[in-house]
Amino acid sequence: MAFHLLERDRDGAVELSRALAEAAATIGQCARCRMLADATLCPICQSTQRDVTLLCVVESPADVVAVEQSAGFRGRYFVLMGHLSPLDGVGPAELGVSQLESLLDEGDVRELILATNPTVEGEATAHFLGELATRRGIRATRIAHGVPMGGELEYVDGGTLAHALAGRQLIL
Amino acid sequence: MAFHLLERDRDGAVELSRALAEAAATIGQCARCRMLADATLCPICQSTQRDVTLLCVVESPADVVAVEQSAGFRGRYFVLMGHLSPLDGVGPAELGVSQLESLLDEGDVRELILATNPTVEGEATAHFLGELATRRGIRATRIAHGVPMGGELEYVDGGTLAHALAGRQLIL
Repeated sequence: MAFHLLERDRDGAVELSRALAEAAATIGQCARCRMLADATLCPICQSTQRDVTLLCVVESPADVVAVEQSAGFRGRYFVLMGHLSPLDGVGPAELGVSQLESLLDEGDVRELILATNPTVEGEATAHFLGELATRRGIRATRIAHGVPMGGELEYVDGGTLAHALAGRQLIL
Repeated sequence: MAFHLLERDRDGAVELSRALAEAAATIGQCARCRMLADATLCPICQSTQRDVTLLCVVESPADVVAVEQSAGFRGRYFVLMGHLSPLDGVGPAELGVSQLESLLDEGDVRELILATNPTVEGEATAHFLGELATRRGIRATRIAHGVPMGGELEYVDGGTLAHALAGRQLIL
């Protein structure tokens, strides 16, 4: 990219540099959900069209974009900016868990959807946050693990296949 | 592989040729589940350790091996050897559906697990077979669609993510 800009598009390089500097200076975190935002609240938290009873916890801002693009979710988000990882010094404080707890204590949220990654750390984080929710009488749900759309069983790993079988659902 | 065998391992080539010829001559299909087998019944259908109330429908013999390796399933199988694909001339007859119907009519099966691939043809096949089962009062279930283990939300396609959210399950 650097070669392309310097060889063929110096104007583009200047523009990119300006955009980057502006982003670095102005983009902060949403005071409510910790999503990257250029105002106090991100557009999703500002919107009155979202279902405030559903709160979806994800690990990173990119996950918010991915879930939004899948168009299957109309609730709000909470972005952890990571996952529990004691060896790297990432504990509940670094993930803003106390902020999440105050959100839950507000009383609007009826269901906490744990959409952390299906990795070991993601599962541990989901379990930890699930306990916070159930202790408050809030439903805690985990996104489904299973075979991805368009895939073939033969090429899916054993753990996923076991989860897909265990999580089978009634049809019709 | 051909170059390796001819350059370095002619004995291996002869052995492989003998094994292949023997397999082509002796391996047939299990009379019950249509799995590849060297006897009338495959080892799974012969076994008395399997749960006869669960029948798992898969598209290919390789899928049986994959599910067996995941160690999450103790029932029996039925191998379609393909999926419904009218344009390619593959209809219910080619998939041995009448054989599956007689298996269901025997009365042992309580749940038909539809583990066809999560592709368009696989979903259509699952839907078609699900109707056969429910018409007989047998539970029809579909394996879970969702994010594969160890994956990251950011790199999962939108359709899978939508399914993973829709299929979320209560934890704790």
